[in-house]
Amino acid sequence: MRQALHELTIETRGKGLVMITRPVLEWVADQGIETGLLTLWCRHTSASLTVQENADPSVRTDIERYFEHIAPEAPGRYVHDDEGPDDMPAHLRTMLTNTQLTIPVADGQPVLGMWQGLYLFEHRRRPHRRQVVLHLLGE
Amino acid sequence: MRQALHELTIETRGKGLVMITRPVLEWVADQGIETGLLTLWCRHTSASLTVQENADPSVRTDIERYFEHIAPEAPGRYVHDDEGPDDMPAHLRTMLTNTQLTIPVADGQPVLGMWQGLYLFEHRRRPHRRQVVLHLLGE
Amino acid sequence: MRQALHELTIETRGKGLVMITRPVLEWVADQGIETGLLTLWCRHTSASLTVQENADPSVRTDIERYFEHIAPEAPGRYVHDDEGPDDMPAHLRTMLTNTQLTIPVADGQPVLGMWQGLYLFEHRRRPHRRQVVLHLLGE
Repeated sequence: MRQALHELTIETRGKGLVMITRPVLEWVADQGIETGLLTLWCRHTSASLTVQENADPSVRTDIERYFEHIAPEAPGRYVHDDEGPDDMPAHLRTMLTNTQLTIPVADGQPVLGMWQGLYLFEHRRRPHRRQVVLHLLGE
Repeated sequence: MRQALHELTIETRGKGLVMITRPVLEWVADQGIETGLLTLWCRHTSASLTVQENADPSVRTDIERYFEHIAPEAPGRYVHDDEGPDDMPAHLRTMLTNTQLTIPVADGQPVLGMWQGLYLFEHRRRPHRRQVVLHLLGE
Repeated sequence: MRQALHELTIETRGKGLVMITRPVLEWVADQGIETGLLTLWCRHTSASLTVQENADPSVRTDIERYFEHIAPEAPGRYVHDDEGPDDMPAHLRTMLTNTQLTIPVADGQPVLGMWQGLYLFEHRRRPHRRQVVLHLLGE
């Protein structure tokens, strides 16, 4: 049984879902681990991780609109506003989604379903450089 | 330290919570691992996993109603509607709950609290056959 | 590769976020594991875990208000009310946040970002004694 660690840097372009399936799968493939457990950890509180459909891009549009609706920018509603009107909603959206994902690995790859894609969900208006730690354990 | 993998197939009857505690615990018991880590991965984007009370069935009724309220079927609201009015809400409900659960194992079983049950949450109207991958690591 | 298990007991003072970063990091440091995987499991269905900003306390105020808004106490709305008006919202808030967190460990500590803190989120009005199981695997 052995372990591997890696840090993925993702450049975002402001609010929205960024697909990260490919760099994650490529890194896992390079480790030569047949069976194991892969963990992704997002090192931020205003960006998060999620698993979503990898096919129809309109799903992403609807998701982004939905989170604008469910955790809106709302000047005056939040006490914490000194980092901008998009900061507090970013924290809430992070809480409602995931900071971490752990995925079994079989036959050398994560057991994603056919329609599952891995996404970083940027919640701030401006582009950011985001760090996602990858940890793989197995043999 | 060793690993075990299994795929659980769950037949759902349309929207709602399906308790999967028993088949999960039985499979773990069969592996003879005393201390370790159990991971459940749901291979879908319109069904998810959650931990909830295992006692009063009315909790499940309230949960189902709540998710109808918070992520409703709403013709015209979503761009993505070619798979039916229940598809986009199913993606949103999946994002708000979990695709994955990882549970420590001690004394040969997952350390669930007395009232905790494991559930598959079906978000589509029609019955589906769902796959949940189980991964156990330990000794 | 070896494992360690621990149960953390957290006394809450009713609804709100309780920071648990310090006892978690201290326990991890004591295990002398350089690289590995840390899992936290909350053994309850009316308290949960979350990762949030560890700096400005007003973030916590906003989070607590937001969850009062998104999953309110609402007499008459829920079928399950025999454990009090705060019980069913507590279950919903647990579902929207996390029962479990899994964090890679590098250089002897969890790879938390600079602003990330670990919190227990108490959803009941009254103080409770909560159990969080810690599992560490690595070498």
